[in-house]
Amino acid sequence: MNTILFPGSFNPFTVGHRSLVERVLPLFDRVVIAIGVNSQKACEARTHERLDAIRALYAAEPKVSVIAYSGLTVDACEAEGARWMLRGVRSVADFEYERNLADINRRISGIETLLLFTLPEYAAVSSSVVRELQAYGRDVSEFLPEGPGKP
Amino acid sequence: MNTILFPGSFNPFTVGHRSLVERVLPLFDRVVIAIGVNSQKACEARTHERLDAIRALYAAEPKVSVIAYSGLTVDACEAEGARWMLRGVRSVADFEYERNLADINRRISGIETLLLFTLPEYAAVSSSVVRELQAYGRDVSEFLPEGPGKP
Amino acid sequence: MNTILFPGSFNPFTVGHRSLVERVLPLFDRVVIAIGVNSQKACEARTHERLDAIRALYAAEPKVSVIAYSGLTVDACEAEGARWMLRGVRSVADFEYERNLADINRRISGIETLLLFTLPEYAAVSSSVVRELQAYGRDVSEFLPEGPGKP
Amino acid sequence: MNTILFPGSFNPFTVGHRSLVERVLPLFDRVVIAIGVNSQKACEARTHERLDAIRALYAAEPKVSVIAYSGLTVDACEAEGARWMLRGVRSVADFEYERNLADINRRISGIETLLLFTLPEYAAVSSSVVRELQAYGRDVSEFLPEGPGKP
Amino acid sequence: MNTILFPGSFNPFTVGHRSLVERVLPLFDRVVIAIGVNSQKACEARTHERLDAIRALYAAEPKVSVIAYSGLTVDACEAEGARWMLRGVRSVADFEYERNLADINRRISGIETLLLFTLPEYAAVSSSVVRELQAYGRDVSEFLPEGPGKP
Amino acid sequence: MNTILFPGSFNPFTVGHRSLVERVLPLFDRVVIAIGVNSQKACEARTHERLDAIRALYAAEPKVSVIAYSGLTVDACEAEGARWMLRGVRSVADFEYERNLADINRRISGIETLLLFTLPEYAAVSSSVVRELQAYGRDVSEFLPEGPGKP
Repeated sequence: MNTILFPGSFNPFTVGHRSLVERVLPLFDRVVIAIGVNSQKACEARTHERLDAIRALYAAEPKVSVIAYSGLTVDACEAEGARWMLRGVRSVADFEYERNLADINRRISGIETLLLFTLPEYAAVSSSVVRELQAYGRDVSEFLPEGPGKP
Repeated sequence: MNTILFPGSFNPFTVGHRSLVERVLPLFDRVVIAIGVNSQKACEARTHERLDAIRALYAAEPKVSVIAYSGLTVDACEAEGARWMLRGVRSVADFEYERNLADINRRISGIETLLLFTLPEYAAVSSSVVRELQAYGRDVSEFLPEGPGKP
Repeated sequence: MNTILFPGSFNPFTVGHRSLVERVLPLFDRVVIAIGVNSQKACEARTHERLDAIRALYAAEPKVSVIAYSGLTVDACEAEGARWMLRGVRSVADFEYERNLADINRRISGIETLLLFTLPEYAAVSSSVVRELQAYGRDVSEFLPEGPGKP
Repeated sequence: MNTILFPGSFNPFTVGHRSLVERVLPLFDRVVIAIGVNSQKACEARTHERLDAIRALYAAEPKVSVIAYSGLTVDACEAEGARWMLRGVRSVADFEYERNLADINRRISGIETLLLFTLPEYAAVSSSVVRELQAYGRDVSEFLPEGPGKP
Repeated sequence: MNTILFPGSFNPFTVGHRSLVERVLPLFDRVVIAIGVNSQKACEARTHERLDAIRALYAAEPKVSVIAYSGLTVDACEAEGARWMLRGVRSVADFEYERNLADINRRISGIETLLLFTLPEYAAVSSSVVRELQAYGRDVSEFLPEGPGKP
Repeated sequence: MNTILFPGSFNPFTVGHRSLVERVLPLFDRVVIAIGVNSQKACEARTHERLDAIRALYAAEPKVSVIAYSGLTVDACEAEGARWMLRGVRSVADFEYERNLADINRRISGIETLLLFTLPEYAAVSSSVVRELQAYGRDVSEFLPEGPGKP
């Protein structure tokens, strides 16, 4: 069974994240969306909110599961039986950041990183931008996947 | 059946190319190494040499097949039933070049590009460097996969 | 009167080029689309075709004029009374190429380069990609602005 | 009336900032230098100092005005009637950062970003470098525009 | 006497740092490894530990000395009589960061920056990655030079 | 004796090249400026002109010698007893190009590449730009070092 883990903070999970999951889904038996939690001072309630929101999105998709993890991402991969990690790259800065991570991860665990180019229309959509727009009262629904409450 | 096509000129097929094939092999049912041939003035004899050399390398691997093609790479993918294309990225220049190609290819055919980071030890090994070293009489065997004539 | 010159080979003029002209139009009194012609062996007939095609596109826009030029772009700017040059940047490679050109041009003539980011949906659309797709018989109408023959 | 807004923290306003304002001035009827203020814990006294210092620099230039704003930059643009935003780009890192911002800003407001390459001699001069040199007692006057107290 | 200063936080000193020192050693009479200390809240005990560890590594190499410094790196160079500073570059992000630093340093002091490409096998090894792996209990000895306690 | 080889086509030798030689001169006993000649169809007369012009520039500097070479640059280094090669880097594109060359060169010969950042004021000055400006009749004397005929 081919499993891939998609790590991130997903704060929030955007249309860009959803698009990556959809594109990789035909290739794997199981896609694990893994919310990285900073163990030092994680707010459990907010992690549960995020878990629930993403699980609701994929309620009808049995190949997708959603977990939270703290610690090294390669340890989460091993716990889930994933030999692959999914990362979207939008920019040169992303590319170099991911290259270092991927090299270290491969070296310490053998786990490989599968890269997909983010779709051009989502390249500028990051969780941090969405949070900032929200903080100033802007409507951000175009950047968020439709939840179960939407038609 | 999941098929991925690995296009290139492979002139020659290097240890870097071999490494990419090996890394992606567990994920696919079939990997098609596809030698792009410039239809205008291709030397058929030399294309056959390259086909034979790469086929010899994978003689014992039933999941790998080797073809030559001219025309658009997405047309070769469709002819082979591949929904994925494999590309290795070493540098920022590679990254941006591949991003444009991948966007256009996805747009005109829906075919996706799977990116892998080239292993650091192979990042500087390109076919053109190998050809240039060969032209000046340097031993390039460390950059080439072992052929059937080697132990 | 503020004039900007938009130099390029425009072979062909794409939706990306049209988008840059439209975005800069409100800011200038005159936009000169300037087809750079390699003086060594230019085919006059093909240059005239391109001039006519772009002129037809802007027939209803009195602020836009279309010329052909050979020689240095800053000389064309001076001939047209343009203190600004327009360039679209899509990628890091574009950015560095344009930076060098802009520095040299400013230094030898005082002419400034105004940069606009290409819209994300056009970032992968270049004239050379369009030509290659055309050569292989693909429909490229989505990458080309509507000519006068289109409704 | 064409208005452009030049947002930044300007802490301090350097020779690099002044150069950008001067270069764009012939093209616009009005240039609004806009000091972004972090609403959470802004020190009003220090913002007023910066406002006064920049206003003194442009006391003789009626086309330049200086404001402070908190919130989204596109909201400041709309409040000032600016359809353009000015950004200087020095490096690839700047370029990619600005590309994302410009894409999001265009998408949520239609406001365009006009990019200028920083002059090569100012490319390494950033406000943060100036602050650090000042903290260690270095003379930084070569990096700062002449204020009213200078001849 | 040609002296070069190699500044860094060296927290910890990795195999990548050691490799840079070794490569530059034949060219200089003296290599000063200089631990930058943030004067605001430096823990003296931990700085001494780091000084001792690096000194132990180079106990048999009279051309290498190890110091700690606070303040500007060019001031440390001048105090040590170094006209050169050593920096390793791994990535485009490093490259641009170092370019700005080098330009400013040359401008305020005339001190030059000598760049070496990090060896490919060490490109992903940074002190911060080593610290993070250590924090999660991973064995990091492959990233650290052999200390005196190792055979 | 520490020798460094500075390879290039130097067509022409610009103020940027001269600046690199001057900056590295204090560190080496000998700097060999090495004109790379494409053996296939080199015009001997023009190579001699370039050799003479650069030699005239350094007539009073006994540490500088000027040679022409064909073949691999590392072979020229070995012939001259140089363990170092000098390269100036201006841009990210330069940086990545040089990184690959340096990696291959180190791997096949042990010869190291010493990188210097081009001075900002020379970053846009390349031999090809100078040639193009000359071809269109522009005065390029500001980009060329003073020859012996200049005061």
